[in-house]
Amino acid sequence: MHLAKNLLTAMIGKLRLTNSLTRKKELFEPINPPEVGMYVCGPTVYSDVHLGNVRTFISFDIINRYLKFLGYKVRYVRNITDVGHLLDNGEDKISKKARLNKLEPMEIVQKYTNDFHSVMKIFNVLPPDIEPSAIGHLFEQVEMIETLLSKGFAYQANGSVYFDLTRYNKLYAYGKLSGRKIEDLINQSRTLEGQDDKKNPLDFALWKKAAPNHIMKWKTKWSDGFPGWHLECSVMSTKYLGTQFDIHGGGLDLKFPHHDCEIAQCLGASDKEPAKYWMHTNMLTVNGQKMSKSLGNAFLPWQLISGNHGMLDRGYSPMAIRFFMLQSHYASNLDFSNEALNGSVKGYTKLANGIRILKEIIYPKHDSLNVNAALINQINKICDDCHSAMDDDFNTALTIGHLFNLLKKVNSLYSKQIAFTDINKATFNRMKTTLLTFTEEILGIKPEKEINGHNLLNILLENYVEAKESKNYKKVDSLRQRLAEEGITVKDMKDSVGWAYNE
Amino acid sequence: MHLAKNLLTAMIGKLRLTNSLTRKKELFEPINPPEVGMYVCGPTVYSDVHLGNVRTFISFDIINRYLKFLGYKVRYVRNITDVGHLLDNGEDKISKKARLNKLEPMEIVQKYTNDFHSVMKIFNVLPPDIEPSAIGHLFEQVEMIETLLSKGFAYQANGSVYFDLTRYNKLYAYGKLSGRKIEDLINQSRTLEGQDDKKNPLDFALWKKAAPNHIMKWKTKWSDGFPGWHLECSVMSTKYLGTQFDIHGGGLDLKFPHHDCEIAQCLGASDKEPAKYWMHTNMLTVNGQKMSKSLGNAFLPWQLISGNHGMLDRGYSPMAIRFFMLQSHYASNLDFSNEALNGSVKGYTKLANGIRILKEIIYPKHDSLNVNAALINQINKICDDCHSAMDDDFNTALTIGHLFNLLKKVNSLYSKQIAFTDINKATFNRMKTTLLTFTEEILGIKPEKEINGHNLLNILLENYVEAKESKNYKKVDSLRQRLAEEGITVKDMKDSVGWAYNE
Repeated sequence: MHLAKNLLTAMIGKLRLTNSLTRKKELFEPINPPEVGMYVCGPTVYSDVHLGNVRTFISFDIINRYLKFLGYKVRYVRNITDVGHLLDNGEDKISKKARLNKLEPMEIVQKYTNDFHSVMKIFNVLPPDIEPSAIGHLFEQVEMIETLLSKGFAYQANGSVYFDLTRYNKLYAYGKLSGRKIEDLINQSRTLEGQDDKKNPLDFALWKKAAPNHIMKWKTKWSDGFPGWHLECSVMSTKYLGTQFDIHGGGLDLKFPHHDCEIAQCLGASDKEPAKYWMHTNMLTVNGQKMSKSLGNAFLPWQLISGNHGMLDRGYSPMAIRFFMLQSHYASNLDFSNEALNGSVKGYTKLANGIRILKEIIYPKHDSLNVNAALINQINKICDDCHSAMDDDFNTALTIGHLFNLLKKVNSLYSKQIAFTDINKATFNRMKTTLLTFTEEILGIKPEKEINGHNLLNILLENYVEAKESKNYKKVDSLRQRLAEEGITVKDMKDSVGWAYNE
Repeated sequence: MHLAKNLLTAMIGKLRLTNSLTRKKELFEPINPPEVGMYVCGPTVYSDVHLGNVRTFISFDIINRYLKFLGYKVRYVRNITDVGHLLDNGEDKISKKARLNKLEPMEIVQKYTNDFHSVMKIFNVLPPDIEPSAIGHLFEQVEMIETLLSKGFAYQANGSVYFDLTRYNKLYAYGKLSGRKIEDLINQSRTLEGQDDKKNPLDFALWKKAAPNHIMKWKTKWSDGFPGWHLECSVMSTKYLGTQFDIHGGGLDLKFPHHDCEIAQCLGASDKEPAKYWMHTNMLTVNGQKMSKSLGNAFLPWQLISGNHGMLDRGYSPMAIRFFMLQSHYASNLDFSNEALNGSVKGYTKLANGIRILKEIIYPKHDSLNVNAALINQINKICDDCHSAMDDDFNTALTIGHLFNLLKKVNSLYSKQIAFTDINKATFNRMKTTLLTFTEEILGIKPEKEINGHNLLNILLENYVEAKESKNYKKVDSLRQRLAEEGITVKDMKDSVGWAYNE
């Protein structure tokens, strides 16, 4: 349902988004339209994906879907961090997990990558166009380190290579994305174990010499070691999207130091600002408190689905959860509570019922119309509002509100409070297309409610037995016939009734 | 349902498999039990996965599942070829596709990797423990080239590096897996364009200098280029499974030159025979003819499922196709025909019906038994036969035959031709466990037959309307109540009946 090319021109120039770099809501003007390059920091695959990540990836899924709907040719890159995500003590997260579990690190990576993909699928998040991994881009990382060394923005020390923030800060402003000042940061910083090689405690690793017991390492001229975490994103974003690209996104917790370091690496290597728009999704709270392991209020996606967590009254279906998340703006806190989640179940069910009915409704043939011009205007206005809401920094909550206003009209048609003759076919079709496109294509809310066929079959077989006992053979034959059409053979046995699948 | 450790000792030493290297059926004795390392050549992700590949991966899925069932700690590695699969003219398959489609090669890789994973999931193939990619192992490939150069088994020419078969063949026998002789090969070989750098026309590329318009390339001391296809498998198999590992598998078409080249690279680099057992799956035919694009009889997995191909009378469900494939031995030709496929639909449906019934049957409590010793012996014998058949080179066809013999007993119990008192509980449980474990866990045949809940709901709503019209309010209330339990509210409207999902 992509818009035709002539419509594209009309749409471009309406979308506005909040740019973390300028702290302003700006008109979206891609560098090279209709191409749009978008990079989002993906998961580190050493444990189950956090709910905060899920929220981030659902938010950028909406952005990806809406940009594509607008007719942009989006290349969406979301990476997999399979090496280099350092702990405070300089150890690699995946290596540590592998050491503790006595596994090959790549088994850890494989397991959690597979799990991550399953979770994304469950929440109906479309796969990115490219999903590169850090290990797949070691050559390019080494090349960027060489460039930074040659330009004087990096230095070697004992087999490691560090980014030289003091030198960088003479030419550029480190911390401009997060709004931190390097002097304050130096005052706040503490000296951590194994960081003695650094000239400045804020300098960050580009290449880290591996300790003897470290499992994941590669031979370079500097040492047997591994790349620093910040490096991979600079390398993979610019490799696939060019030195300058449109959107860079991620969770708010990545703004500093990760994204500020990315900017430093890119500016240092190419003197080019990597991303025109930086977008950040906000954090999760539970009943108003920050979600964190130490507070015991951090549940994982599967716990939220199953309800298997002390904070949760019950489980919530993936689409109800997606619906819940879209009721907040991506840049606002998302507060979990059983009350709010239950509200979303109600809302999602209402939407699912409306969409199911809508799909069945076809505009009937009329001999004459008796159009209600005010009603038609009202419907068209709501359709326009859906577009405007998404154009206003992807305001999904407002969009959902408008969709519910459209649903009211559908329900009125269904219950005959509005007659089909009140509106013309074009208006009906626009309403139907808008509701279906925004719900399923743009918001990615799909039908999920299932009917248990086996249980209904049991009810029908009971009816069959009743009909047999009351010698209502017409009913018996009709049920047998109808079930046969559904691929089921009723089996009359000695003292019971069974069934089998037909071939 | 893994066997207990004390049972493991009893099982080891019974499994026999056909080793392509010795051309004999051999006792399976892993190098370091209970660990088993298995490497299988995965897909080149530049187009839809072929049905022949699907057959190969289903075959090794069974082998992986059975080895794990026997209690082995299997590390199963299956790679993704995302660079280096050369065409006859020396061009990379993925690069070529990207060039023709004007796409970034990694977009091609991503699309077909995602599709491949979906196809594997549809056919219920378990993911491997590690799924490494060639691009993720460029460092290791460069290292192996350096080793081969230093040992004199490789030479540089114009920025490329080739394996030196003449030198290798003085110490080892190239072609021993496929049984080819190097002299014959030299006589058969023709000089291809761009191969002028080679000392011997049979020498194969380890590193290939990229043409100026080539998209995928990396900087090494030899050239901006890319690795040869055979190299990645030698590198990734030995990286994750050790210099010597247990099983190396793949399709028969890979035996030469791919697998013979792998052996040459590994022996050259480490003087160690890489795999103890080589296993090859055989080719596909259609009505007795080789399946090939040029004959127009090559259908893709989705075509076989949808029936959308001239050679196919209809579509076949994924589990019916899996069942069909398991009815041939992995090392035999697999011949497709509508007759044979229809036979498999019948067989699969029979199995699905039997398993469904079996899951419902619980051995009842008895005051006394009247056991039929001959019957008990017979059932135990069939259970033993299932194990023996799988132990005999993974003979799935024979195993399925035995499972059908067990199903006959289940059906006799269900239709009361056999009384539960004829057999004791232990025998019943062994029969149930054997059937379920072999069908679902080992053969990976899962319940697939679905009942369309929406269609059955329509039948029930018709019954509801009938009951309402005939003023049978007891029936009306009961149907309303039963449907409410299934999450459905019946809506009585002015002149019709509708429904909605409950929250």
